[in-house]
Amino acid sequence: MSDALTQLKERLKRVTDLERVGRILNWDQQTMMPPGGSEHRAEHLATLRGLQHELLRDEETGRLLDALGPLEESLEPDSDDAALIRVARRDYEKAARVPTELRAEMTRAAAQARTVWVQARAESSFEQFLPALERNFELRHRYVECFEGVEEPYDILLDDFEPETTTAEVRAIFEELKGELIPLIAELRNDDVDDSFLRGNFPVESQEQLANEVVYLFGFRPDTWRLDPTEHPFASGAGVDDIRITTHYDPPTMKSFFSAMHEYGHGLYSHQLPRELERLPTGGACSLGIHESQSRLWENLVGRSKPFWNCFYPRAQDAFPEQLKDVELGDFLAGINRVRPSLIRIKADEVTYGMHVILRFELEQDIINGRVAVRDLPSAWNEKMSEYLGVDVPDDAHGVLQDTHWASGQIGYFATYLLGTVMSVQISQKVLEDVPDLEEQIEQGEFAALRDWLGEHVHRHGRKFSPQETLRRATGATIDTKPYLAYLRAKYGAGVAA
Amino acid sequence: MSDALTQLKERLKRVTDLERVGRILNWDQQTMMPPGGSEHRAEHLATLRGLQHELLRDEETGRLLDALGPLEESLEPDSDDAALIRVARRDYEKAARVPTELRAEMTRAAAQARTVWVQARAESSFEQFLPALERNFELRHRYVECFEGVEEPYDILLDDFEPETTTAEVRAIFEELKGELIPLIAELRNDDVDDSFLRGNFPVESQEQLANEVVYLFGFRPDTWRLDPTEHPFASGAGVDDIRITTHYDPPTMKSFFSAMHEYGHGLYSHQLPRELERLPTGGACSLGIHESQSRLWENLVGRSKPFWNCFYPRAQDAFPEQLKDVELGDFLAGINRVRPSLIRIKADEVTYGMHVILRFELEQDIINGRVAVRDLPSAWNEKMSEYLGVDVPDDAHGVLQDTHWASGQIGYFATYLLGTVMSVQISQKVLEDVPDLEEQIEQGEFAALRDWLGEHVHRHGRKFSPQETLRRATGATIDTKPYLAYLRAKYGAGVAA
Repeated sequence: MSDALTQLKERLKRVTDLERVGRILNWDQQTMMPPGGSEHRAEHLATLRGLQHELLRDEETGRLLDALGPLEESLEPDSDDAALIRVARRDYEKAARVPTELRAEMTRAAAQARTVWVQARAESSFEQFLPALERNFELRHRYVECFEGVEEPYDILLDDFEPETTTAEVRAIFEELKGELIPLIAELRNDDVDDSFLRGNFPVESQEQLANEVVYLFGFRPDTWRLDPTEHPFASGAGVDDIRITTHYDPPTMKSFFSAMHEYGHGLYSHQLPRELERLPTGGACSLGIHESQSRLWENLVGRSKPFWNCFYPRAQDAFPEQLKDVELGDFLAGINRVRPSLIRIKADEVTYGMHVILRFELEQDIINGRVAVRDLPSAWNEKMSEYLGVDVPDDAHGVLQDTHWASGQIGYFATYLLGTVMSVQISQKVLEDVPDLEEQIEQGEFAALRDWLGEHVHRHGRKFSPQETLRRATGATIDTKPYLAYLRAKYGAGVAA
Repeated sequence: MSDALTQLKERLKRVTDLERVGRILNWDQQTMMPPGGSEHRAEHLATLRGLQHELLRDEETGRLLDALGPLEESLEPDSDDAALIRVARRDYEKAARVPTELRAEMTRAAAQARTVWVQARAESSFEQFLPALERNFELRHRYVECFEGVEEPYDILLDDFEPETTTAEVRAIFEELKGELIPLIAELRNDDVDDSFLRGNFPVESQEQLANEVVYLFGFRPDTWRLDPTEHPFASGAGVDDIRITTHYDPPTMKSFFSAMHEYGHGLYSHQLPRELERLPTGGACSLGIHESQSRLWENLVGRSKPFWNCFYPRAQDAFPEQLKDVELGDFLAGINRVRPSLIRIKADEVTYGMHVILRFELEQDIINGRVAVRDLPSAWNEKMSEYLGVDVPDDAHGVLQDTHWASGQIGYFATYLLGTVMSVQISQKVLEDVPDLEEQIEQGEFAALRDWLGEHVHRHGRKFSPQETLRRATGATIDTKPYLAYLRAKYGAGVAA
């Protein structure tokens, strides 16, 4: 029996290794690779993904899992080994339904589509991107068809990013939010706040220095982390001791600073995953929703808060004197927290952000359920932007082409951004309960207690439990929109700088 | 039959993909990876190498090769498909003898040993390195034992780097060279040449700019190439359109410039490999000897030649005015070509270089054949340095610890440096026959004809033929020490600047 467990672990370690190698290749592609390498990269990623899939879905995996049934029943359900068998069975049963060739082709097509999208976005040409996007959606249709007796086809896609979470559950949460957010945006938008100092001349070298400074203050260490520039910020890495975060330096804005804090949150999660489960599936991240709860916590609940800027604002003024030297801290806080509907999700304020996600979540289902054709996405997008946020989309680069996800085959991913945002508030409120002087610590530039709390209550569970069970263990409750909405009202209703 | 060929190709493409992914991981480890990632990296490389090995040695590979016997016999031996079956059979028969676990362990131990070596070298502590080095040698003993009826155990190791070349053949060439080089060094050493201007202040930014400039002049293009700093220069890449070269910037010297030219030669070979055989084993490099013939050609036969510096010297003077503004071209040429026995292989001049390689080739055999214990390597090294080059080794960092190869498990590799150096002269003389105005072109900074000749006569064969057959096709002859020795005598006997 324990021999079967050892064999299962050895097999799963190879699966994990291949996945992590793929992550390094993705990181490389977006930070280092000469552009000419994209065709090689698509093939290499497809080969890795195909082999990973084959190892996982091999009948030998099934045989080992069968043999381990009695052991699993005899173990404490919370034990590492019981969780491992449970998670591995789940992964195996999904993988066994999907032919390797389809899995590899999904990877290859996505890598190719990403290259096409970069160009199409630069030229704001949806036409140019359409064939690659249609191919990605077509492959997801084929993927969904591998599963039988599916109530909602979209469930299959969502589950790859937020496991054990159904479309119906997310839809209920999002409907609740939608009903509240639309009037809240109307109420809280403050077009008269002057944030003109946030556009101008932010020298890239100063941005680089400041981004490095803030993540270092948070807990980034160069022996195990990297921070690099990229076009579309993301976090990646090869394991707990090889964490790679990125940001995008855009000279007229200081957006890179907020991206760096956001990606730090992702990086810290990966860095504090359970070391003893390294190379096992249970040692990975729980879900993208939980991941996003970490990044949003550092970006917004720390990084747009008054205590943090009480500590850090003099540094920002030093770095960008031309922009900030005559701006009072209160005006700065009001500026970086100004509520105003806008075109680009990753630049959206905390109040309007949710509607960007809900729009994408709905459009993905419309396509997967055949209600909207891929070629009609731009007009569907633009209509919803007008309806939900009251903005007119001037061109597809500022509309349907803005995100990399559909190009990268990440269909079913967007919902996790808002789930994570909602959960980030629940988590931060629980931290405040347990660490009552947290705000004072943040004002002193002390983040160890926050890091440790997150490590102890969220990160250390890895992927042992479902996202909702993980959240429940951390906060005592499953996902709940009320704290999030109350937080928005409290922060933005009172006036941010108050 | 053609179905078996298609299946074989699909299988070998995956094998090639895994190998190339491993190369990118190696590149990453030496240029980008945070040091903490080394344990993850060792596991990931071991997993990739193990899977690559399994795919290759799988009985299905053997079955396909058997089925393809009749097709192979019916094909022109020079055809792509005949060469593919031949090369694949050779790879398969070697791999089939080696258990996957041993192959993976060789990779894992080497990745770990490299990390230990970096530290040991920094502290000049052979003791610290010894256990890892003993482990690497022990694993090579086990590797050699996988093969039966081996006349010389070292043949097995050498063949991994220089296929179809025996120890006896190399020994005969090296004995010939040794007999000539030792008196030649005594005759040509010119201790009275003043090269003091080559040590001083070469600002790293200027070195970077000049290295980029020279490789750009040679043919580097940023859409398909990268040049990065590293500790120990090497060339790598993921395929013909993703070429990565490195150099080491050392502020007191301009050695980075020569390394960049050297690695450019490797990069160009990889860049001009047969595109139509991409992802097949025949599309790879022929051998490390042939590879080195390319790097040494660009570094020495171009990069230390009078025509090149007639073109480029003003640029070097502009870049390093403090060092070079008052140095005449003739004195510069004499300085960069000064013959003088020294401690470090990669800094050795063209005349003494061979003895550094012969020393390593002999020591490797002494260990593999049990004549020297690994722990006695430092004293054996130091004795030979004294005997062959008349220099005293002050510490192991400047002796046995200087190269990365043994740490990286590349035992049997060194000989290819001298084989390549000898072949580089044969090749360059053939280029001169075919492109009689080559030197004038180089004086004009024109390298297209040289690149094209090498592409047409060397690179395009990929790995279709043995190294010696490749050389024969390029030059009309197999390896011959006479042109090399005559070149040394002509260049250094006449006075370099003459």
